[in-house]
Amino acid sequence: MTGVEIRLGKIFGRAGKAVVVACDHGMFDGPHAGMEDIPAMLERLGDGADAILLSPGMLVHARLYFARRTAPLAITRLNYNSVFCFKWNYSASVISNLYQPEDAMANGADCVLVCLTLKTGSEATDARNSEIFADLCIKAHRLGLPVLGEYFPHSHLTKDPDEFHEEILIGCRMLSELGADFIKTFYTNKFEEVTSKCPIPILGLGAEKTPTDLDALELAEKEMRHGAAGVVFGRNAVQSSDPPAFIAALQDIVKRGMSAKDAVRKYGLTG
Amino acid sequence: MTGVEIRLGKIFGRAGKAVVVACDHGMFDGPHAGMEDIPAMLERLGDGADAILLSPGMLVHARLYFARRTAPLAITRLNYNSVFCFKWNYSASVISNLYQPEDAMANGADCVLVCLTLKTGSEATDARNSEIFADLCIKAHRLGLPVLGEYFPHSHLTKDPDEFHEEILIGCRMLSELGADFIKTFYTNKFEEVTSKCPIPILGLGAEKTPTDLDALELAEKEMRHGAAGVVFGRNAVQSSDPPAFIAALQDIVKRGMSAKDAVRKYGLTG
Amino acid sequence: MTGVEIRLGKIFGRAGKAVVVACDHGMFDGPHAGMEDIPAMLERLGDGADAILLSPGMLVHARLYFARRTAPLAITRLNYNSVFCFKWNYSASVISNLYQPEDAMANGADCVLVCLTLKTGSEATDARNSEIFADLCIKAHRLGLPVLGEYFPHSHLTKDPDEFHEEILIGCRMLSELGADFIKTFYTNKFEEVTSKCPIPILGLGAEKTPTDLDALELAEKEMRHGAAGVVFGRNAVQSSDPPAFIAALQDIVKRGMSAKDAVRKYGLTG
Amino acid sequence: MTGVEIRLGKIFGRAGKAVVVACDHGMFDGPHAGMEDIPAMLERLGDGADAILLSPGMLVHARLYFARRTAPLAITRLNYNSVFCFKWNYSASVISNLYQPEDAMANGADCVLVCLTLKTGSEATDARNSEIFADLCIKAHRLGLPVLGEYFPHSHLTKDPDEFHEEILIGCRMLSELGADFIKTFYTNKFEEVTSKCPIPILGLGAEKTPTDLDALELAEKEMRHGAAGVVFGRNAVQSSDPPAFIAALQDIVKRGMSAKDAVRKYGLTG
Amino acid sequence: MTGVEIRLGKIFGRAGKAVVVACDHGMFDGPHAGMEDIPAMLERLGDGADAILLSPGMLVHARLYFARRTAPLAITRLNYNSVFCFKWNYSASVISNLYQPEDAMANGADCVLVCLTLKTGSEATDARNSEIFADLCIKAHRLGLPVLGEYFPHSHLTKDPDEFHEEILIGCRMLSELGADFIKTFYTNKFEEVTSKCPIPILGLGAEKTPTDLDALELAEKEMRHGAAGVVFGRNAVQSSDPPAFIAALQDIVKRGMSAKDAVRKYGLTG
Repeated sequence: MTGVEIRLGKIFGRAGKAVVVACDHGMFDGPHAGMEDIPAMLERLGDGADAILLSPGMLVHARLYFARRTAPLAITRLNYNSVFCFKWNYSASVISNLYQPEDAMANGADCVLVCLTLKTGSEATDARNSEIFADLCIKAHRLGLPVLGEYFPHSHLTKDPDEFHEEILIGCRMLSELGADFIKTFYTNKFEEVTSKCPIPILGLGAEKTPTDLDALELAEKEMRHGAAGVVFGRNAVQSSDPPAFIAALQDIVKRGMSAKDAVRKYGLTG
Repeated sequence: MTGVEIRLGKIFGRAGKAVVVACDHGMFDGPHAGMEDIPAMLERLGDGADAILLSPGMLVHARLYFARRTAPLAITRLNYNSVFCFKWNYSASVISNLYQPEDAMANGADCVLVCLTLKTGSEATDARNSEIFADLCIKAHRLGLPVLGEYFPHSHLTKDPDEFHEEILIGCRMLSELGADFIKTFYTNKFEEVTSKCPIPILGLGAEKTPTDLDALELAEKEMRHGAAGVVFGRNAVQSSDPPAFIAALQDIVKRGMSAKDAVRKYGLTG
Repeated sequence: MTGVEIRLGKIFGRAGKAVVVACDHGMFDGPHAGMEDIPAMLERLGDGADAILLSPGMLVHARLYFARRTAPLAITRLNYNSVFCFKWNYSASVISNLYQPEDAMANGADCVLVCLTLKTGSEATDARNSEIFADLCIKAHRLGLPVLGEYFPHSHLTKDPDEFHEEILIGCRMLSELGADFIKTFYTNKFEEVTSKCPIPILGLGAEKTPTDLDALELAEKEMRHGAAGVVFGRNAVQSSDPPAFIAALQDIVKRGMSAKDAVRKYGLTG
Repeated sequence: MTGVEIRLGKIFGRAGKAVVVACDHGMFDGPHAGMEDIPAMLERLGDGADAILLSPGMLVHARLYFARRTAPLAITRLNYNSVFCFKWNYSASVISNLYQPEDAMANGADCVLVCLTLKTGSEATDARNSEIFADLCIKAHRLGLPVLGEYFPHSHLTKDPDEFHEEILIGCRMLSELGADFIKTFYTNKFEEVTSKCPIPILGLGAEKTPTDLDALELAEKEMRHGAAGVVFGRNAVQSSDPPAFIAALQDIVKRGMSAKDAVRKYGLTG
Repeated sequence: MTGVEIRLGKIFGRAGKAVVVACDHGMFDGPHAGMEDIPAMLERLGDGADAILLSPGMLVHARLYFARRTAPLAITRLNYNSVFCFKWNYSASVISNLYQPEDAMANGADCVLVCLTLKTGSEATDARNSEIFADLCIKAHRLGLPVLGEYFPHSHLTKDPDEFHEEILIGCRMLSELGADFIKTFYTNKFEEVTSKCPIPILGLGAEKTPTDLDALELAEKEMRHGAAGVVFGRNAVQSSDPPAFIAALQDIVKRGMSAKDAVRKYGLTG
């Protein structure tokens, strides 16, 4: 797995911390504000992020952005999960295959994201979701592609905080036991337990757009304080008052231990 | 994907606009008027269209028509979708595989259509429909075949216009994120949002036969005005008062910005 | 199947008895106490066990521990079984594939565990569960990997003892008839019938943490007295008052016929 | 082939010029001076090159160097060619497979080199050599890996200059006709004909160590003046009086049109 | 390649040194003295070696010896090489496949030896020999099996010492560039150059039986002094005056820096 180590190192660097910007929302949600035109959005963002999470089909349109040595790495999402369609009142969290690792690699991806939801209420769904997760991990590793495992609980907006934490704790540990190389997941009320009881790096999510840049950066600060190895921010980065400055602020918080307040001041962000 | 680019260019030309005539209705609907004998129909239509959408099995019968360098390109539909059987009160929108891209190519197709329906109410169906869509895209691309993605909502005749628009908006964006090269879909009440927030060309549908040629051409005109890259018309072209003239009119509207009224006048169509 | 014999012999030795420590709980249950950091836990345990049962993904993190000739062998669990999610009130016992034998071997495993649950109430589930079990056995044997079959009944905490025994009796015999090389299962009220009517060695489980080390060791003593060929203990070993001493005590009980009481005294364990 | 474009762009940048350092000599020649310890050599060189050409087995040892976003890309040589064994008086130029593209990718390569020799005197050898070349091109492209084609004539040190030029001219054109994405080859006495009559970028070789840095840089200057898109230098870079300065000088000559003399002066190299 | 690391660690331990006893001579040479009955020979040798090199077919007969946790690891030779048939005046060094890695693993091997001869005088043979070597390396690594590369020159008994050294130097470096994990080769007159210019551990051969144990141990001492990471001794170990004592002496020389003289005295060997 030399390829996995090399590609993972390109995302995390020798410091072992990473700032990832996500713009894969269109795979399930349609065009979010600021993400209507992904290539234009990427040019606006600049090269401040360590990696960009996007859909496999979008790489063809954004290829000029990625075709430079200083560009962030490309991580593409591989599987379908109906958990993202809560806008349609979906709650069964059915996962299926979309792209295989070799197809993502052919499109230029350096890393793949594989999503898992468990505790769906249907044991057959849990069993099949796990099976797809492990299968994609194994195939990605055979090609030297690192796997960003995503644990995404259903009903994430309405679950009891303790139950939510417990599920994230179990889910992240399971991702690592099945072979993920690093994890993207939600912040919880006892997040340090999640990060300290899992053998692989965990990146904290940004989720919904917060009212101010400061709110979002404070979430990043909390995630780092409780053991995260970095963040995956989407709307809060892209829809920020100043996206490149927001990403620079994330880098200071993630890699240099800066406080969110200081970062807002340094970069003139909203607070 | 040089093959994809070359074949796509044969449909769209350097201007990037296309007029496609669809006569694949028999795959789900039986013989529509004017489409009883596809080879004869094609000879009647002439070569005015840029491509013809038909079923894979019909290529064998229409091979004489396509076996000339000046003939329109052949696009064949690959997958089954029960969404088309509303005549039987079907509403579950179950998709399955019919032809694989290599089989379509063996029959002479230059491009394939893959259909997707989501928001079916069954998450397992949405998951499986998406899986089939992505799988066919990937396989077509490996063979250098461009993919015309079709987003087709269930209950399309009765849905609330805003809800319908929202679904088309999400569906088309998803097709592009999964790798489609261009799209065929319905006109909506905010169609410009659909075309402007999607990175690939969108062709507007004609759907039901309108009372006059002018009605149909005015739909094409509206679609173009709101960002379409062309049209896919079936019954309105084939059952027109003068099919070759109707297609010529579409070409003027799509590629030369002519108004529907002027086109009707120029070609002596009904209005 | 020379490889199967050789690898099996490395676990059982010439005496044909084995002490296995399990720490694969994180695959379904999240981080148990003492198992938060598997590599650190293994260093604490020392080399007293004959083999360690862990998940396939954890081998990469624990590779330094296993990369020594005196290290216990590595057994990895291959398949998913929702029977372990009783914490989520799951009761359908659906099994699916996670890792294939060749993937486990590539990760450094010397032996694989395959789990089976029958009598699920769904004949389709029983049929599919059996199919996965046999398939993994066959593939493991082709590579020279021995198979540790695990029979795990659903509702194991609440079943009637006689019914429970009857199911374990049938289940273990079935594992052997399908090709397992040795078995991990529960102690029952007529355990000697299980061990004497099955042609392959059976290792008794430890299951839930007992109040004292003595309680756990007495279970091991009973299992051995009734024909077990050894034990697979997880939490009772790892969460013992003195894990290396507890494992040494298990070795004395399993291989030298020592009583639990004497072992507690010899190693200064809690009783 | 989006992956091919993206990975090629990472080597060439938007300016379309590249400086590659080769240290794959050990695959055929044993340890050259300065290349005894490849990882240490790479740390000495720094990140000034756009890509490093090395053997597939060496990536595992040099993985720390490549596991950073600012590191040059890794190009690995895939096939065997006895043309390199002129030290053993070999002259038949027999090519065989060593690594397949998927294995190179699993080891972390971003691009592959495939070598071709023709005019071997044995038509069977020419035929087989071509077959292997095309096969590796196709497989690399399926995975999104760009192919650096190398045309290497046998008896390259003793051939008549005009005959040598003619063969390079034909060979390079043939590489492009078979699907290579860019080329590494020798400078010839009418090099501009080679570069101007081939549709893909050509990188000029450095070959034997020249007495001074200036001599080598003047070769690079001549190659660029006659249409090269960059250079692949090995011994002249690694055994230079100051390797990082030499690479910086190459960058100035290749991308900024500096003369070799000015570069020697700017970087204090030997001349 | 976690499996490769784990299995390699079982041979080399944390000190990174290894003593291997070879008894695979029967694959090419028939029954050497002391090796008539391999299982009996192994029982005589005891467990002092870190690994035993034997043929794949012999594992079935020796399975009882290896089926214990304290047994040395089993390394099996995979490919045929006529270089070993100098007794038949063979000199073309033709290599072919015998066992594939998966077959060796099925027979219980933990590691595989792959042999290479170059400079055969036939470029087609060199090309094919290299191709087989790389192919077996890649397949072994996919299964997590480490590869012991053997460079074996033809005419090894009669070659000029400097030419012999030069070939070993090039050959060993080439094995590492093609993916071997460690090497078995001959001692040369400038052996330190071989070990210092190769990135992987090199084990020195014992070759022909020396008159006394001391002669053989002095060869081991010289090999270690010049950078070897251990030894592979066959006849000198098996036909020693006291094989277990001879192996213990090798361990002291290889891992604890003892002189051959002291080792002979300590173990009462012939000198």
